[in-house]
Amino acid sequence: MNSTISRSSHIRDALARLPAGDQTAAAAWAAREPQLTKPAGSLGRLEDIAAWLSTWQGRHPPRLQHPRARIFAGNHGVAALGVSAFPAEVTVQMVGNFQAGGAAINQLCRAFDMELDVVALDLDHPTADFTQGPALSESEFVAAFVAGMDSVPAETDVLVVGEMGIGNTTSAAAVACGLFGGEATDWTGRGTGVEGGALARKIEVVAAGVALHRDQPPLEILRRLGGRELAAMAGAVLAARQRRVPVLLDGYVTTAAVAALALEMPGALDHCMVGHVSVEPGHRRLIDKLGKSALLDLGMRLGEGSGAAVAVGLLRAAVACHTGMATFATAGVTDKG
Amino acid sequence: MNSTISRSSHIRDALARLPAGDQTAAAAWAAREPQLTKPAGSLGRLEDIAAWLSTWQGRHPPRLQHPRARIFAGNHGVAALGVSAFPAEVTVQMVGNFQAGGAAINQLCRAFDMELDVVALDLDHPTADFTQGPALSESEFVAAFVAGMDSVPAETDVLVVGEMGIGNTTSAAAVACGLFGGEATDWTGRGTGVEGGALARKIEVVAAGVALHRDQPPLEILRRLGGRELAAMAGAVLAARQRRVPVLLDGYVTTAAVAALALEMPGALDHCMVGHVSVEPGHRRLIDKLGKSALLDLGMRLGEGSGAAVAVGLLRAAVACHTGMATFATAGVTDKG
Repeated sequence: MNSTISRSSHIRDALARLPAGDQTAAAAWAAREPQLTKPAGSLGRLEDIAAWLSTWQGRHPPRLQHPRARIFAGNHGVAALGVSAFPAEVTVQMVGNFQAGGAAINQLCRAFDMELDVVALDLDHPTADFTQGPALSESEFVAAFVAGMDSVPAETDVLVVGEMGIGNTTSAAAVACGLFGGEATDWTGRGTGVEGGALARKIEVVAAGVALHRDQPPLEILRRLGGRELAAMAGAVLAARQRRVPVLLDGYVTTAAVAALALEMPGALDHCMVGHVSVEPGHRRLIDKLGKSALLDLGMRLGEGSGAAVAVGLLRAAVACHTGMATFATAGVTDKG
Repeated sequence: MNSTISRSSHIRDALARLPAGDQTAAAAWAAREPQLTKPAGSLGRLEDIAAWLSTWQGRHPPRLQHPRARIFAGNHGVAALGVSAFPAEVTVQMVGNFQAGGAAINQLCRAFDMELDVVALDLDHPTADFTQGPALSESEFVAAFVAGMDSVPAETDVLVVGEMGIGNTTSAAAVACGLFGGEATDWTGRGTGVEGGALARKIEVVAAGVALHRDQPPLEILRRLGGRELAAMAGAVLAARQRRVPVLLDGYVTTAAVAALALEMPGALDHCMVGHVSVEPGHRRLIDKLGKSALLDLGMRLGEGSGAAVAVGLLRAAVACHTGMATFATAGVTDKG
């Protein structure tokens, strides 16, 4: 249990004291990169990734010996309103599937040699229906946030953050709309696959929630419209920053959850890259609002950290090239005139 | 030496007898995929990749035990016209760098556990200047094509095809313009980094070559405006199809080279995916003309198979998910109603 955070105001205090990136490590990256045997800039975003890992790990060369994925699961009161294509019991069933090694994220972590931990957050107690009141009490919100913080070991080279929770794209849409404004239709998509009347119902639920909780500060939006796994992801991302751990964000729910941090404190997500852009239309909009650009665009919409996990392959490629390539001098290759 | 191909007409004969994809393997993929514990379609292009590997490997489940990269190197007469930011001797120097393990492609093959072979094609004899006559004689063209064919072992689960050759984005632009029409400016980019007067000169060279060799059939365009590494890549891609090996294409030069096959025989590239879209503006245009869509868009422009090699990470993810995930039935997860 993180002893320094026992109420929301402590989160704001922590956001005011975030460590900056390591400019010495960034400079070491910048000194080596132009010496490598390739035209300057020709590895594109792989070069950016190596720079970002150096800067936020605070060391050069960057390392990927301990990549870790943290998947947070929660249940949602709004699931009872018919906003999902799947019943609410699927959340706990999928946690069992994660624990047994059968889900997509298990295969991806194995493929990219990444440790995985699943944090189930009080699944027997769904959040309250946010169309009637706040989804979480102050103490529930802080407890989930701290559970997220506590899930991040200091010895982590990159953290993949993802989630599972039937009904949580409804929460994500409400949080995003509450944080950035616009209409519920701008932010609400099909999630696991709702259509027709169920999609219309989902939009109504989002609009009702946003109407009830409008004009609140960002962390209050997250508490009132979010859920335990959203609060935990925000906590994990804050803790990662404190512990010099770069973060790969996953899809719509993850990005909506951590957006609250950026609105509370500009730059709070500078240590994060967005692993992929989801099919969920609000995700692209959200990434734009945060001034970021996703690494992958593969038409994925699964959640559970899967898109970010695939992007770990890009990080492995980036680190391999930056650290392993020969220089023009050592390889005897003539540089550009 | 491939004994069945000794002149260009034999290539056309082979293109007329290409094997189709394996519909039994495709059906086995389609039977398993909807049973996996995720919403239908939620892994996006990872699902397509698994289907494509099954179809073109001709087996289900698909495998990635023997991924192989083949990098072809050639020298170009037009390099003497000042079309590149690097001098022509860099081609042989970079082949030495590949052999010593110092280039980007070496690190990427190591990162994704892929075998690499570099095929240097008569580097002491650059092609002829295509603004004055055909780049290659018929016998030179066929020899390079066959060298490409001979580089593909039957026991290959996916083939990454790439190249190295100072001056070869000029050849690629000329081939693409010769195959698809339009202006030289539509197809000519900065390559390794030419600017200003050198870029204008490059465009003039492309325009002059296309004007001299216009209205030729596709393989003749490739012989007259291409180069040995381009011919070899086309040969490797044809041989891969014959041997049931799916192919990941790399950047602009690779795609231009193999486009000639698709224009000779529609469907000749159905066993190929495009690993990434390069910064070189002609590449996106070429991918569109071929009716394909790149897997990655990372601002890369290095060649040497590097973009396609990064995409092997996506293939590993796709195979891991399709083959390793639990089904709704075995995991006890409730499917969508």
